Amino acid sequence: MTSARPAEGPAGTGPPDGELRIIREVFAPLATASGADGLLDDVASLHGGDWVVTTDALVAGVHFLPDDPLDLVARKALRVNISDLHAKGVDIEGYLLTLAWPAGRDHRQLEAIAAGLAVDQAHFGCSLMGGDTVVTPGPLMLSVTAFGRAQAPIPRRRLARAGDDLWLTGTIGDAGLGLEQALAGRSGDVLVARYRLPHQVSRRTAAIVREHARAAMDVSDGLLLDAARMGEAAGVGVRIDLGAMPVSPEVAGWLGAGPSVELLLHLATRGDDYCALLAADPARRAVVADALAQAGMPAVPVGACFAGTGLEVLGPGGRRVPAGGVLGWSHMG
Amino acid sequence: MTSARPAEGPAGTGPPDGELRIIREVFAPLATASGADGLLDDVASLHGGDWVVTTDALVAGVHFLPDDPLDLVARKALRVNISDLHAKGVDIEGYLLTLAWPAGRDHRQLEAIAAGLAVDQAHFGCSLMGGDTVVTPGPLMLSVTAFGRAQAPIPRRRLARAGDDLWLTGTIGDAGLGLEQALAGRSGDVLVARYRLPHQVSRRTAAIVREHARAAMDVSDGLLLDAARMGEAAGVGVRIDLGAMPVSPEVAGWLGAGPSVELLLHLATRGDDYCALLAADPARRAVVADALAQAGMPAVPVGACFAGTGLEVLGPGGRRVPAGGVLGWSHMG
Repeated sequence: MTSARPAEGPAGTGPPDGELRIIREVFAPLATASGADGLLDDVASLHGGDWVVTTDALVAGVHFLPDDPLDLVARKALRVNISDLHAKGVDIEGYLLTLAWPAGRDHRQLEAIAAGLAVDQAHFGCSLMGGDTVVTPGPLMLSVTAFGRAQAPIPRRRLARAGDDLWLTGTIGDAGLGLEQALAGRSGDVLVARYRLPHQVSRRTAAIVREHARAAMDVSDGLLLDAARMGEAAGVGVRIDLGAMPVSPEVAGWLGAGPSVELLLHLATRGDDYCALLAADPARRAVVADALAQAGMPAVPVGACFAGTGLEVLGPGGRRVPAGGVLGWSHMG
Repeated sequence: MTSARPAEGPAGTGPPDGELRIIREVFAPLATASGADGLLDDVASLHGGDWVVTTDALVAGVHFLPDDPLDLVARKALRVNISDLHAKGVDIEGYLLTLAWPAGRDHRQLEAIAAGLAVDQAHFGCSLMGGDTVVTPGPLMLSVTAFGRAQAPIPRRRLARAGDDLWLTGTIGDAGLGLEQALAGRSGDVLVARYRLPHQVSRRTAAIVREHARAAMDVSDGLLLDAARMGEAAGVGVRIDLGAMPVSPEVAGWLGAGPSVELLLHLATRGDDYCALLAADPARRAVVADALAQAGMPAVPVGACFAGTGLEVLGPGGRRVPAGGVLGWSHMG
């Protein structure tokens, strides 16, 4: 997303979200099967079975930096897809890899890609199932399609209800700041490592989602943009409390004491967090908080859904703040 | 494959096939699940169910010409995947589309892509299930992942046996000559239309394969290269009789009477035919010939498998001819 244009919010929060508009106007009419869910969710389910499928692609210079190590790029390509499955309560079982390989690039570099994939296959327990490798005059691109089997009903975005608590399974802002550090040449920074390899992707997320989420999705394009998308799909308003937004110790250090709304908004509108956003029944708040705490995840709601539309952002003092037009990263401007 | 390098044959027929070598050496060790079949087949089967999946990508300037109409490009992206499913006896039910869209290109051109897909969805009875759209500084790329459910055991390449007849469900050479016509600026030619849109992709192929094939695969990179790959996977030798190679009336016209071996080899080493190559029990020859004839397909075997290794090519008089080093198109040089 390095060179992707910032995205504005879905209808009701400003000018339309470019990516969402294209999906809705151009491609959704082609999604005639019920398992496609009108293309308005993160995964599709295959009819007559419990298989769930998702796909995400990374392009050099857009989603990763051209000099990022290839083993990490490959693991990132896999993890951004695993993150989508986990956020629906599903563990990965297999994947397909399509590689667009720049003409003339040394094929031996493919070994770094395979080595990275081998590490994460072992970690997440999955197998390469197939793929395609093509030469391109353009940049390196990795497109992964990931599969898993649902063990519970899929917590579609549209299932969030007014009154639901919103929870996160991880912290916000590490990768966004990491990208800025990388662009500034500070490649040894721990935040850069978190930009290069989504570090919060964990099977524990899938287990938490299965157990506790009414609706869930992964946070990949910016907390505010993704939360607004969930609200839009569910036909509810979404409130995010920046004062309750979980951050890592490193990001807390960057924020300093009593951080400004501007700095908090900066974090909440970056991308690449790859944790899950859950909507859960408020009657189960204590149970959910306990489960998250036991998994080492933030145990305080980051917001809530309300009857209405649009995105409401609260600053640290609980006062409503204008979120501005830019809510996150879009891949289609 | 316009700018792809010609591929040489698998082991036993000359220097190794670049694409196959990369798959075998780099990626096959990652294919730990049985359904992946060591990445040596055209489709994968998902464990514990009958879902079958395949993926193929098209890059502008490599697999299609940059000025090919976008509705046809989209249908070609879908059809090359449907062809892989049909060649395994499987009808398509759904697909994912990943689109790498050149930065700055008018989004309204996406409508031509959607319009093309709508035509072929109706024709083949399938639904878009999801996808990803990303901006790229490189060329337009469409990557499709297609799904279907197996109604019969999958006729893996490796299941061909010595003695089996080899059959084709369509003609050879139309698209290869069509590409040459297109590059020469004769864009109105019927063969150019066959290059732009694989015209032989038909559900009848899937039905024939289910009923009659022991092993099958689609012919997409050149008859000789693909036949050699089947032999390699099955551990048998493969003989192709150029005199029995089915051609369309237009290609027959180009060949003229008593065509030279060189012209026949030219056709058999182009790509983009998108028909299926079947290995079938020779005891069932009359039944298979009858079924193919009833489906309007060539009803004469194009060759056979034999105990041994390598590719044997016979000229029109039945005399063995040297196939040379170049057997078809490779995407990875």
